[in-house]
Amino acid sequence: MDNIFEHIPADLSEEVFQQLAGNDKVQIERIVSKGQSSPESGWYDQAHNEWVMVLKGRAKLCFEDLSEITLGPGDHLDIKAHQKHKVSWTDPDVETIWLAVHYQD
Amino acid sequence: MDNIFEHIPADLSEEVFQQLAGNDKVQIERIVSKGQSSPESGWYDQAHNEWVMVLKGRAKLCFEDLSEITLGPGDHLDIKAHQKHKVSWTDPDVETIWLAVHYQD
Repeated sequence: MDNIFEHIPADLSEEVFQQLAGNDKVQIERIVSKGQSSPESGWYDQAHNEWVMVLKGRAKLCFEDLSEITLGPGDHLDIKAHQKHKVSWTDPDVETIWLAVHYQD
Repeated sequence: MDNIFEHIPADLSEEVFQQLAGNDKVQIERIVSKGQSSPESGWYDQAHNEWVMVLKGRAKLCFEDLSEITLGPGDHLDIKAHQKHKVSWTDPDVETIWLAVHYQD
């Protein structure tokens, strides 16, 4: 047993990705951010679906139609394969802990 | 977008299972318990893997070797297919909110 709020890396100059469980078809991942956002020029355009939930902190996700949503603890959504998106903001003052489930159709 | 802590059913006389995302191979599910536990006689013996995390409340899981663990917010573990287990206790005073990811090998 492990706790998703514990063992936060001291160095958060880069986002930290850590697989918690899964296999080659499904990956359950913790992401810890602190102030990072996606590169201005780049969109995530993934071949798989990604369900995400914020567990701590705050983040903004932007979509190709330029709509933006703010996620706080407990907020979750399902990002379908090839639904272009980017992380436009994460809280610079506290770590933002995400849970992501990557899964194929 | 939805929030996992919201829209808790008023009637928790039975556990409430709700699929949040997924398909025929992966199911991401919210479970809300309040005082329920598995039947004394029965073990879950599932053909698929189940990753679970408690987000609110408290619960105890028991395994076939009679080891028991207590889960609070953020505690997670991966229960492999055919690893027999049961929920031996959930907090009777507050709702316990679980996230479960059911996935095949």
